[in-house]
Amino acid sequence: MGAGAAVDLKVELEDLLGPGGVLSDPADTEAYATGWRYGKGRALLVARPASTAEVAAVMARCAARGVRVLAQGANTGLVGASVPDGGGGMVVLGTERLDRRLEVDPTDRAAVAGAGVRLSALNAALAPHGLHFPVDLGADPCVGGMVATNTGGTRLLRHGDVRRNLLGVEVVLADGTVVEALSPLRKNNAGLDWKQLFTGTTGLFGIVTAAALQVSPLPRQVAAALVAVRDGEAALALLRAMETGLGETLSAFEAVSAGALTPVLRHLPNPFGGPGDVPPYAVLVEAASSLPREALDLEDALQGAVGAHLEEGGDGILDARFGRAEAFWALRHRVSECLREEGRVLAFDIAVPRSSLAAFTEAARELVAGRWPWMSVRDFGHWGDGGTHLNLVWREEEAPGPGEDWIPAVQAAVYALAVEGFRGSYSAEHGVGPHNQRFFDLFTPAPVKAAGAALRAHFDPAGLLGTARLW
Amino acid sequence: MGAGAAVDLKVELEDLLGPGGVLSDPADTEAYATGWRYGKGRALLVARPASTAEVAAVMARCAARGVRVLAQGANTGLVGASVPDGGGGMVVLGTERLDRRLEVDPTDRAAVAGAGVRLSALNAALAPHGLHFPVDLGADPCVGGMVATNTGGTRLLRHGDVRRNLLGVEVVLADGTVVEALSPLRKNNAGLDWKQLFTGTTGLFGIVTAAALQVSPLPRQVAAALVAVRDGEAALALLRAMETGLGETLSAFEAVSAGALTPVLRHLPNPFGGPGDVPPYAVLVEAASSLPREALDLEDALQGAVGAHLEEGGDGILDARFGRAEAFWALRHRVSECLREEGRVLAFDIAVPRSSLAAFTEAARELVAGRWPWMSVRDFGHWGDGGTHLNLVWREEEAPGPGEDWIPAVQAAVYALAVEGFRGSYSAEHGVGPHNQRFFDLFTPAPVKAAGAALRAHFDPAGLLGTARLW
Repeated sequence: MGAGAAVDLKVELEDLLGPGGVLSDPADTEAYATGWRYGKGRALLVARPASTAEVAAVMARCAARGVRVLAQGANTGLVGASVPDGGGGMVVLGTERLDRRLEVDPTDRAAVAGAGVRLSALNAALAPHGLHFPVDLGADPCVGGMVATNTGGTRLLRHGDVRRNLLGVEVVLADGTVVEALSPLRKNNAGLDWKQLFTGTTGLFGIVTAAALQVSPLPRQVAAALVAVRDGEAALALLRAMETGLGETLSAFEAVSAGALTPVLRHLPNPFGGPGDVPPYAVLVEAASSLPREALDLEDALQGAVGAHLEEGGDGILDARFGRAEAFWALRHRVSECLREEGRVLAFDIAVPRSSLAAFTEAARELVAGRWPWMSVRDFGHWGDGGTHLNLVWREEEAPGPGEDWIPAVQAAVYALAVEGFRGSYSAEHGVGPHNQRFFDLFTPAPVKAAGAALRAHFDPAGLLGTARLW
Repeated sequence: MGAGAAVDLKVELEDLLGPGGVLSDPADTEAYATGWRYGKGRALLVARPASTAEVAAVMARCAARGVRVLAQGANTGLVGASVPDGGGGMVVLGTERLDRRLEVDPTDRAAVAGAGVRLSALNAALAPHGLHFPVDLGADPCVGGMVATNTGGTRLLRHGDVRRNLLGVEVVLADGTVVEALSPLRKNNAGLDWKQLFTGTTGLFGIVTAAALQVSPLPRQVAAALVAVRDGEAALALLRAMETGLGETLSAFEAVSAGALTPVLRHLPNPFGGPGDVPPYAVLVEAASSLPREALDLEDALQGAVGAHLEEGGDGILDARFGRAEAFWALRHRVSECLREEGRVLAFDIAVPRSSLAAFTEAARELVAGRWPWMSVRDFGHWGDGGTHLNLVWREEEAPGPGEDWIPAVQAAVYALAVEGFRGSYSAEHGVGPHNQRFFDLFTPAPVKAAGAALRAHFDPAGLLGTARLW
């Protein structure tokens, strides 16, 4: 696009969106072009529509000029899909002003929220009704981005991902067509489930402008244990026992390996004793219930379930501490940050069938020790739902040379082990973006790519939306 | 297809499938061509493959000859989508011999089942592990049919539909291509969720040959109440109170109107007293838990939750009985059968947002009373998830003339009221088939039809699969 045409588009969008609706000064647009962890691009300009009609008008204007568009929510994604490419020709469509629509209906037990509503704002609006949106994350994303990336989180075991809690969407297609399907229906078994096409597909088939979300009663009580286990198989035995013993109240099951826990224990006290007492795995078991304590003593139930497992010969258990969930979560949430103090970190977002978690992790350890011995596996993750963040950590001075040119080979080998060796996923919860595009290319079955191509050709034949590829 | 070509295909498929693999005698094929409630067609022949490879080979043979194919599971569908059309040119691909694959893994808390495995057989295999597949139905469908129709059921409020419990599928496409995606991953956020394209889409994009299903711990205890309420709004107030009071243990919330309950009470004792004591709505509240009774007394919890609602001024409650869930379900499950003793029945499968259930039902009563006064609304349904089976009942002798030519107008008006008046669905849980095709045509937004057409053109350009249309 020539400079003149870019100016024309800017004037057109300024007319449309009014003051504050368009940003074009690089000082203002840079933040929109820089990813939270990965991705650094350049925006032609940033359009900030404040209504669905404005989104549609922006899309129609850009489509008429053949200008590519990148929809962006809170820009907290981890695969580089929320920033424009480096060409400087893309309009960033920031959804942050689509935050005025936020309706809660306790009888529907549902909320309708604009794409720009933050998760924290959604939960603040739900709390007075005794409700919350149970997709629980470290970041504070926007509703539109959560749908487009199908966010997972630490309570997926209990509540599922965004997809499972999504009742409806409103989308704007690449040509500016608005499709409103926001009725909060739990049952609507009328053929193709339209909203699935826009869930987890990175905004490539349309821009989510609002969502109808099923919400859940807030817990009235939470109980937690930190259980030290001998190895991964003992962690899986504990998982089976907790699902049997705690049933519908089990809300999280997170395993942290010794390699991941040790750096945290330089900052926080060790619940298991002295600094040397770091078990091979520490498992955070959390139960949550909306029942009052008169009906159910959840702490008792948790202690009973762990005790029953021990009595039944759960002999991989080394120790178990019961206490405030917040204290145990504090250990868990510090892992990523503390690992970075240990050296360089290469992060993976992997899922395998739960029954393979221990075997996969062991195989990954062997693989890394054999080929890249300067790296160590420091894994932790959502074992209850098969997810593991397999971090590889190394000290720069121990690595061969400064180039780090071995990294692509490590990534390819570890992901191949997960996907081909253990029928797993190279993207458990982060979605697909430029940062992991090559793994999509490598591991996606041809018929799935072909379906993606057919949908792209249908929804966006000119290829205006997004920077990732699902084909 | 000429008679000679049909014979050639028969010989070819007999070679492929062996003895018992092909049925062509009308005495044998008639049952495959007759729907459980709707639909009566004629099959060219019935092919009964016993493996995925055989399904693929049948499809390849039929595709080569341009012969249309209708995949059929247990043939328990309610929209006529599981029987061939009347032309006599379609091959019925019966999946009943795809029943040998049935693997349960308690650590994965998942099962992989062939398309021909019955729900009852699946649950029988799960029970020794303390597990079940929680999609609960009156019929005993096959796994493949459950995926293709996205079955709902009476515990959807707690456990969701098949879609929500589906981890993977294996499908055979129209050209015979097999796509196996059966890894039991809970997290696989890698773009387009392939399995969604085959869930609830009536076998029009491919034939489901196996599924990986998330399963749940069996309840250890169930508590139930039958609550008499003054009107629909009081039922909704009770729903809110039960979701707050029972939280994650609430497993069903079914409302039965006086008009639907009265005929049942000619056969079964009235829990509320004498035969005249029929409340405007009787609500079955069920709670279920996998926690042991030492940790949670669910009957106490249920009585406490109902009691708390009364104390908080839930003054629409007329009476409440606590007792065995089976006894209350017996009343609920007899409704359809007993209604038929009252006269002719026109059934509807409707969902609206939960907050509109009372208003919609009242509006439907007024509509019917005004225009078709010989019919009465006898509604019951899954109010916890917004579903209502709005049965209209009439005595033939009171209706104007024997032709019943007013029925299409009643259907169109009631469904329009649900969809256009209350943002509801004309197919809450039965799916789409020839029986309700015209309502799909009427009420589906154009962009949704266009996406269906694009997918059909991609997966099955010759239009060989199925009898319904999702475009």
